[in-house]
Amino acid sequence: MKKNVLIIGAGGVAQVVAHKCAQHNDILGNIAIASRNIEKCEHIIASVLEKGSMKVQGSLNAYALNALDIEATKALIVETESQLVINVGSAFINMSVLSACIDTGAAYLDTAIHEDPAKICETPPWYANYEWKRRDLCKEKGVTAILGVGFDPGVVNAYAALADREYFDSIDSIDIIDINAGSHGRYFATNFDPEINFREFTGQVWSWQNNEWTSNKMFEVKRTDDLPVVGVQTSYMTGHDEVHSLSANLKVPNVRFWMGFGEHYINVFTVLNNLGLLSEQPVVTAEGLEVVPLKVVKAVLPDPSSLAPDYTGKTCIGDLVKGKKDGQDKEVFIYNVADHKVAYDEVGSQGISYTAGVPAVAAAILVAKGDWDVSTMVNVEELPPQPFLQLLNEMGLPTRIRDEQGDRDLTFN
Amino acid sequence: MKKNVLIIGAGGVAQVVAHKCAQHNDILGNIAIASRNIEKCEHIIASVLEKGSMKVQGSLNAYALNALDIEATKALIVETESQLVINVGSAFINMSVLSACIDTGAAYLDTAIHEDPAKICETPPWYANYEWKRRDLCKEKGVTAILGVGFDPGVVNAYAALADREYFDSIDSIDIIDINAGSHGRYFATNFDPEINFREFTGQVWSWQNNEWTSNKMFEVKRTDDLPVVGVQTSYMTGHDEVHSLSANLKVPNVRFWMGFGEHYINVFTVLNNLGLLSEQPVVTAEGLEVVPLKVVKAVLPDPSSLAPDYTGKTCIGDLVKGKKDGQDKEVFIYNVADHKVAYDEVGSQGISYTAGVPAVAAAILVAKGDWDVSTMVNVEELPPQPFLQLLNEMGLPTRIRDEQGDRDLTFN
Repeated sequence: MKKNVLIIGAGGVAQVVAHKCAQHNDILGNIAIASRNIEKCEHIIASVLEKGSMKVQGSLNAYALNALDIEATKALIVETESQLVINVGSAFINMSVLSACIDTGAAYLDTAIHEDPAKICETPPWYANYEWKRRDLCKEKGVTAILGVGFDPGVVNAYAALADREYFDSIDSIDIIDINAGSHGRYFATNFDPEINFREFTGQVWSWQNNEWTSNKMFEVKRTDDLPVVGVQTSYMTGHDEVHSLSANLKVPNVRFWMGFGEHYINVFTVLNNLGLLSEQPVVTAEGLEVVPLKVVKAVLPDPSSLAPDYTGKTCIGDLVKGKKDGQDKEVFIYNVADHKVAYDEVGSQGISYTAGVPAVAAAILVAKGDWDVSTMVNVEELPPQPFLQLLNEMGLPTRIRDEQGDRDLTFN
Repeated sequence: MKKNVLIIGAGGVAQVVAHKCAQHNDILGNIAIASRNIEKCEHIIASVLEKGSMKVQGSLNAYALNALDIEATKALIVETESQLVINVGSAFINMSVLSACIDTGAAYLDTAIHEDPAKICETPPWYANYEWKRRDLCKEKGVTAILGVGFDPGVVNAYAALADREYFDSIDSIDIIDINAGSHGRYFATNFDPEINFREFTGQVWSWQNNEWTSNKMFEVKRTDDLPVVGVQTSYMTGHDEVHSLSANLKVPNVRFWMGFGEHYINVFTVLNNLGLLSEQPVVTAEGLEVVPLKVVKAVLPDPSSLAPDYTGKTCIGDLVKGKKDGQDKEVFIYNVADHKVAYDEVGSQGISYTAGVPAVAAAILVAKGDWDVSTMVNVEELPPQPFLQLLNEMGLPTRIRDEQGDRDLTFN
């Protein structure tokens, strides 16, 4: 049994993680929340206490931490006696937090891939550029590191593993489709950090097709699907973390990621991108001030966490898997539908944060209990999916399947 | 006779002014060009020499000058023995250059109204907030100051004066229509300083209607006209300098300004404006850097002067005047058509800069010769329009008229 959780980060996803850890603090033990901005941690703690999320009496504390400082992070892990670290901070801190975990033996979990602030859309597979370089070290030291265990990446990797293990003899294609049919009522906003959000779209779109890496531009390739609950939706091929691990870990010739965008989003994105305002490279103003345009765009956009109170509608995220079973063509869509308002009522965050945060806590519980405490570095598809998906059924993210037998809940008992 | 010109500014309009001064240096004498950036002045001088624009042998020199420094500006006026100052620098320096002219007795000419960097769309009439406060002082000291003598404001004010003096007994409305039907071939660019350009559109649109100030939003009111050469064009009611002097100086109940915009321009503008990226008020990035969004937008957009080599097509700018003559309804459209390519071939600038710069030099010649050396501060409509328009006929901006007698050139001999 591993015990005591250190949550790094204090954004919308961290808020969900804190609430869900509190709801399971009989298993997870003490909860520490650390961020550069301790006030944001304290704000989350107030929300957890206000909603009465703590299952049993326990410790819930805020800490100021620069997570790029490995020694400081190690010291906090030791001070809080945390055996579980859930990193839901900026994508730029993964490698330093991972180092702190390797040095202290704490289990490491995150929900998104590491990024270098000065680079976008690096050479695939992305995990090989950073995280996987520490895989041998994790194994050697017996440190459990579960990469990308949010919803996508994360739950969709478990869906892929489930399809691979239970539904198919061979898989030809996995198309991960992410639709947010919700509405925040603002002129324009991103659902998570605009800087990270836009960085996904300004470079090449990498997909795994016919067993090789294929490059496209954003909004170059689209598809339209009639999906459960959210209906007919157009989505665009997008570069995304899970394509880079699924292509390596499963024998599947085609792995693609598709994200839904409305025409308004695409118009705003296209204008900003064509003007150069989404660039991560600094420009110099006429007055001589050096500034990164993307950081200014971030500064003028709404804080994603501010969207939650007014967010309505649903998300639908799932894996459309095609292949062969018993010599026959087969197609399944394994998915979840989440509701922004329901998420807000439960944990004070909108659905995008909810779907990213809940799986990380489910994974932490599985590590705490031993089911997933694998003493090495893994991506989610390398782990048994059933206990994870069953726990998510109970924690607010139920799995459903649509196939030749109809559209129904999946349970794993 | 006044002699020797100091040109302040080194952008696209200054380049036109320098070429045109050179073409008339037998009258205007020595030419000095001053700007914060002396290299830009030297670049203009190289262009003047390369095109052989100097009519007679003469002096043509570059100076580094911060025109907000009144004492430095006075010193340069004295050093260069300039009796004529053409201010085509940023709209923020008008008042300090005017001060230097009042103190030294040099004649002052500009092409756009003074602006405070921290304010947009101030209370009408705009001239009363800055320039007109010095009118009595100019008169007292016998200093000639000709305000807004570009094309619009400037030539269109002369068109209004001509209509008022020659074509109507009473005028009901003056609608100034500015259409740029040219193409620069870029995704998006502004034709002059983006900062000044956007500042015109982000606040209230002031118009003079039924003898009172009326406020609208940008793109709220539009009209469509079938115009000479450029054909059917949609234009939008826009706040503009000349509305603020014509409404005070002529007895006309309706004075409006209309600027043509394509759908693409409006889309880009709307996205940037709605996001807050056109704001002149600073924001703070997540890293704590204070930055004015509009200055970042300016930094990523093409330098307007870089558009000139590829610019094709024509502009059509004129006054649609309606009123009574001999008891009958009458309507005239007095206008000019300019060609971007022709302007570039002659002076190395595009048509927007050309139409703004040539009139300032024509006015300087009229001041030098005495016709317009009025020893006080005036707007263009207060001066006899004929010698100005005749000079423009000869300098590349011919006046045409369309009325019940047809569409024809106007000459003034």
